[in-house]
Amino acid sequence: MTTTAAKAAVMDAEAINVNSFGNIFKLTSFGESHGVGVGGVIDGCPSGIELDFDFIQEELNRRKPGQSNVTTPRKEEDEVQFLSGIYEGKTTGTPIGFVVWNKNQHSSDYDHLKDVYRPSHADYTYHKKYGIRDPRGGGRSSARETIARCVAGAIAKLALRPYDITIQAYTSQIGDIKLDGTYKDYDLSLTEKSPVRCPDPVKSLEMEKLVMEMKGLGDTIGGVATCVAKGVPSGLGEPVFAKLHAALGHAMLTINAVKGFEYGDGFDAALFRGSERNDRFFNDNGKINTRTNYSGGIQGGISNGQDIYFRVAFKSVATILMEQETVTTAGKDTILKACGRHDACVLPRAVPIVEAMTAMTLLDYLLIASPTR
Amino acid sequence: MTTTAAKAAVMDAEAINVNSFGNIFKLTSFGESHGVGVGGVIDGCPSGIELDFDFIQEELNRRKPGQSNVTTPRKEEDEVQFLSGIYEGKTTGTPIGFVVWNKNQHSSDYDHLKDVYRPSHADYTYHKKYGIRDPRGGGRSSARETIARCVAGAIAKLALRPYDITIQAYTSQIGDIKLDGTYKDYDLSLTEKSPVRCPDPVKSLEMEKLVMEMKGLGDTIGGVATCVAKGVPSGLGEPVFAKLHAALGHAMLTINAVKGFEYGDGFDAALFRGSERNDRFFNDNGKINTRTNYSGGIQGGISNGQDIYFRVAFKSVATILMEQETVTTAGKDTILKACGRHDACVLPRAVPIVEAMTAMTLLDYLLIASPTR
Amino acid sequence: MTTTAAKAAVMDAEAINVNSFGNIFKLTSFGESHGVGVGGVIDGCPSGIELDFDFIQEELNRRKPGQSNVTTPRKEEDEVQFLSGIYEGKTTGTPIGFVVWNKNQHSSDYDHLKDVYRPSHADYTYHKKYGIRDPRGGGRSSARETIARCVAGAIAKLALRPYDITIQAYTSQIGDIKLDGTYKDYDLSLTEKSPVRCPDPVKSLEMEKLVMEMKGLGDTIGGVATCVAKGVPSGLGEPVFAKLHAALGHAMLTINAVKGFEYGDGFDAALFRGSERNDRFFNDNGKINTRTNYSGGIQGGISNGQDIYFRVAFKSVATILMEQETVTTAGKDTILKACGRHDACVLPRAVPIVEAMTAMTLLDYLLIASPTR
Amino acid sequence: MTTTAAKAAVMDAEAINVNSFGNIFKLTSFGESHGVGVGGVIDGCPSGIELDFDFIQEELNRRKPGQSNVTTPRKEEDEVQFLSGIYEGKTTGTPIGFVVWNKNQHSSDYDHLKDVYRPSHADYTYHKKYGIRDPRGGGRSSARETIARCVAGAIAKLALRPYDITIQAYTSQIGDIKLDGTYKDYDLSLTEKSPVRCPDPVKSLEMEKLVMEMKGLGDTIGGVATCVAKGVPSGLGEPVFAKLHAALGHAMLTINAVKGFEYGDGFDAALFRGSERNDRFFNDNGKINTRTNYSGGIQGGISNGQDIYFRVAFKSVATILMEQETVTTAGKDTILKACGRHDACVLPRAVPIVEAMTAMTLLDYLLIASPTR
Repeated sequence: MTTTAAKAAVMDAEAINVNSFGNIFKLTSFGESHGVGVGGVIDGCPSGIELDFDFIQEELNRRKPGQSNVTTPRKEEDEVQFLSGIYEGKTTGTPIGFVVWNKNQHSSDYDHLKDVYRPSHADYTYHKKYGIRDPRGGGRSSARETIARCVAGAIAKLALRPYDITIQAYTSQIGDIKLDGTYKDYDLSLTEKSPVRCPDPVKSLEMEKLVMEMKGLGDTIGGVATCVAKGVPSGLGEPVFAKLHAALGHAMLTINAVKGFEYGDGFDAALFRGSERNDRFFNDNGKINTRTNYSGGIQGGISNGQDIYFRVAFKSVATILMEQETVTTAGKDTILKACGRHDACVLPRAVPIVEAMTAMTLLDYLLIASPTR
Repeated sequence: MTTTAAKAAVMDAEAINVNSFGNIFKLTSFGESHGVGVGGVIDGCPSGIELDFDFIQEELNRRKPGQSNVTTPRKEEDEVQFLSGIYEGKTTGTPIGFVVWNKNQHSSDYDHLKDVYRPSHADYTYHKKYGIRDPRGGGRSSARETIARCVAGAIAKLALRPYDITIQAYTSQIGDIKLDGTYKDYDLSLTEKSPVRCPDPVKSLEMEKLVMEMKGLGDTIGGVATCVAKGVPSGLGEPVFAKLHAALGHAMLTINAVKGFEYGDGFDAALFRGSERNDRFFNDNGKINTRTNYSGGIQGGISNGQDIYFRVAFKSVATILMEQETVTTAGKDTILKACGRHDACVLPRAVPIVEAMTAMTLLDYLLIASPTR
Repeated sequence: MTTTAAKAAVMDAEAINVNSFGNIFKLTSFGESHGVGVGGVIDGCPSGIELDFDFIQEELNRRKPGQSNVTTPRKEEDEVQFLSGIYEGKTTGTPIGFVVWNKNQHSSDYDHLKDVYRPSHADYTYHKKYGIRDPRGGGRSSARETIARCVAGAIAKLALRPYDITIQAYTSQIGDIKLDGTYKDYDLSLTEKSPVRCPDPVKSLEMEKLVMEMKGLGDTIGGVATCVAKGVPSGLGEPVFAKLHAALGHAMLTINAVKGFEYGDGFDAALFRGSERNDRFFNDNGKINTRTNYSGGIQGGISNGQDIYFRVAFKSVATILMEQETVTTAGKDTILKACGRHDACVLPRAVPIVEAMTAMTLLDYLLIASPTR
Repeated sequence: MTTTAAKAAVMDAEAINVNSFGNIFKLTSFGESHGVGVGGVIDGCPSGIELDFDFIQEELNRRKPGQSNVTTPRKEEDEVQFLSGIYEGKTTGTPIGFVVWNKNQHSSDYDHLKDVYRPSHADYTYHKKYGIRDPRGGGRSSARETIARCVAGAIAKLALRPYDITIQAYTSQIGDIKLDGTYKDYDLSLTEKSPVRCPDPVKSLEMEKLVMEMKGLGDTIGGVATCVAKGVPSGLGEPVFAKLHAALGHAMLTINAVKGFEYGDGFDAALFRGSERNDRFFNDNGKINTRTNYSGGIQGGISNGQDIYFRVAFKSVATILMEQETVTTAGKDTILKACGRHDACVLPRAVPIVEAMTAMTLLDYLLIASPTR
């Protein structure tokens, strides 16, 4: 490496907290799809939390490929190994390091991609940014990175348990098949019984059929996840630039393939009048309550004690097993036909990630605020 | 104050960077609606930027009330006074302090609100969070806080000028009146000529009529702003938790009354297949280009050199001049009829704020990345 | 400004939190010596703190020039104007903006310095760093910047009051006149009665004489401040990179003219054996106590409930009224004879700054830790 | 766990960046002495750096126990396993995860310490802070944590190489044996040949003898390390709260057993006059230079191109193999006689840690500043 090249390399150094999430409860993640493993460090976890390792593994299992016929047939036996921060089954307040070793990686599946930019993938932008990229399985931009989020999210859920805060996400849309009701209209305990994680059994079947059709075509399809958090006390959230919904929106927008976020009545709010959508207060047997909850449980960036709910849009998976026009890294036109094992729809496996990011965000904001009120 | 009360007070202390925005180019803002003034400190502004003070004042004028018949008749003569960081008209690299003094505040307009929680306002949540609130004009949760964003955004725009990055926002929907086309279908230079900041002259008239109707009723209405940034070089944005669109989404969601954010094809992406929405690369006379731009200029959280565009949903203004059910701070049912001078629709004045937050975010990410590529 | 120059300007942009101090209780300061004013924004101050404005002003008066014959004869009538964050005399939890207007600035005193780098000042390094500098009174590197620290420190002291944490600093050395004892050997209430802020009346006179002698010569002299914080509960401080003494050391080293920091037995510790300096525990009538306190109240970066004490070394003021060899900004050899009104020794006025930074650090760490133990 | 206990646990959560170091080049470390391993994640490392794995291992070897007769006879075969962020031997710009597995841990050595607070250790303060502690080998407060610093420091050194910045630390004092000269008076290449890392062969022998004597007694002794960084360009460092020397001081004070930090003439500066210690500029054959360097290469917190040098005081190791008075965790008086394998003086093994922290700090500040000047 010449001195000039080396200095140039140093000049390309990049920013701040790029692989960390959270303020007090903070996850720093690492790992590429086809490297040694993926993992992270959780800093700021309260001490004295009893870790339910079976629960953590179950949460990991919810995101893993190969759970059902609608997900990719890749089998990833993802088992988390904890490296620190735990003594006699309890958190000690020191950083929790963990790793999930990569197994069953077929790196040779990606040999044909080394010199090609896949459309709507991050190949091109990583290459432009860093001047170097790990082409195997998308490298750092792979959805395998979400493993670290699942582990940290599971621990966050355990820390939230005594607060009786529950977080439930589900698939509310795949393609043009859409749930008509709100989260109140469904029995959310049915979500985990559905292979597409949709609590409406009829729509679930339709969605499953659509995903299988896409799979047969080598095509993919988008969708929407809805999430509700119940039991969040009032007073969480920070004006002005750390509003609770801004933190949740940021959290969701960091998940691969997410294209939009709305909370409460969201984009629908544009259509209505103040007189129609203001959430009026009333004295509800001695407690202050609101008649409606278009606000989605947050006013002025601070929780008001009502349910917090929001929706997250996901695009179709970029890898399709069909011929596509693209260019080589040298800029020449070419035709790409991807092979490998991929999801036809990200929604079923995205649902636990949405929950994990919500749990981390709410715990972080609980720790930021004093939880005494 | 008893010791116990005082300690309790200390325990309610709140979090991190709550009134700061940005990583390197960082705005810290302060000020309440009916206090002495609102202002901020801009840290991390590059040295040697020639400040065009007329331009900064014009940007401030774009957000000020009383610009036209569709905005509130409150006249706010908002003039910025710079306190530091400038020498002989240029930035010195040291922090730029500034203040806009509050004038023409009718604090007595708010006397009737002292003991009442206004529906869908932040009165209740601030009170729950802090145990104390400044009831005059919404205090810190007032939209007057956006003045600081305008000033910092204007300086960010000046710093971005040599990069030929342009940022244009406009009103694309008010109530059910909606632009059918994308940003490419309009002459965006018409935006500033429209009192509702809509570049489609016909729709602009309809929107204006709708807003005036709401005003007559003492009611309010929501809407959507669209924003496009052209000329952003490829390579901006940071994996994993600092994706460029996550930063933009976070920025937008910190603006008062915002309920949703989507970029590229956004929520619409849920409906489509990978084969329909992948942005195929091609060799465009020696340059790598994409056939379409459903990605909204960002792939894997990093800009790809295409236009960056997104949409931001705003709810109707919460203050309506009609009778509303609510409760007193003591929890008693009551009827509130607000008076005062308020906007019937936030969109016209929100457009410059959307631009300001975009400018700050893009400049910050330019400074984070090395701008040499 | 050409495009290239402008881009270069942007490339020189500088970093992170450079003008902010603290994590939760966070001061962001601004202002130059000869600009409009100096001030700051305090974010994260607990709500409900009753502000004793007289006390805050007194703290400001302790740092101001012209207090006695040993300080500079410049009269600065420094009065703080609060801009936000206070309602009916109490903090509201929103950011506290404030400014102290510059008056009595003799900018023409500095005309002869415009083209010269003063030895051991920051003129040269600021110029190298930013490519531009405000030569009037040292600009941002002026000790006038410490005004913001005093204001924030005074508020921090008020927030600490209910905890019965007291912070006292004093001058323990000027030149070769040195207190022989530790903080326990003096009546620290005498500190404020001494013009050099030394609690030993005999040494105080000697120090005063030495400073006056320096003043007569147009020369300056260094010294040491000692600080003790009593009543700090055990459990404050964070492993590994946020150790309490590291935070205190960092805080002190940000003060102008500071050259060294040591806590507990400090550099002296190098000379001794574990058997001589370990702080043995014993049961002190039912409470765990230590026989000695060489640790300075901190073990492993966490407070242990004993007194926290440390020493801070200050160099002599760089501005001397004697001829000195130096260079012009063009690099030519020249002789500089400064005029103007300057301190001959920074110690008397540094003592309140040491206290202010200590108060801010301890409050920040109290807010970081849960204050329930 | 009862709900109340669990909530209390959550309330004890602790702060911000406690296990992370740096702004752009950021190390997050994890691991306890007797856990599975210690390691970390390096975020913000420039892409394209060719990693010299032998060099990294050598740096690790410099800190490992059992190097010579003056260090602890514990043999730790510390080998670093990289988990991510590297492709074909080069950094990719993505986070570098790594782990050093713990081997040869004699956890049973610590059984007798489970219910006892060791004097001048962090046992008591960790217990007070977290309500739980891992008693094996000091847990997180063990010096084994410095392994992560060594790995990150070695990578920082590799990134600094093209800048011709060199960093050399050495032992300048152990007990009362002290080097009389400055760093300029010694051939620093001799440092690594000395078992105590002292470049003065005569003093080295004396120090070695003293350490061996302590070892024989089961006692320990303190000392001082001096560090010099050559080749640092002017313009690094940030006013006001991110001064370069404040960052270096903070870095050093986070190292276990450090009691003090001084740069340039340090505490000695207190004794002298401005006329004696100002660093006069002169034209040195066309280049601006200074006659002296009492400033230690930093003025106003910004590097001036001269050598940066500083001194770091270390206390004696707290674990002594002699009977000591102490208390049990229940607060009862007891006598402790530690066994196990410990260093009699931390200096020899501290020298590489001082260098590592310096390298990380300088690289971070290079990345913060634009390295173009």
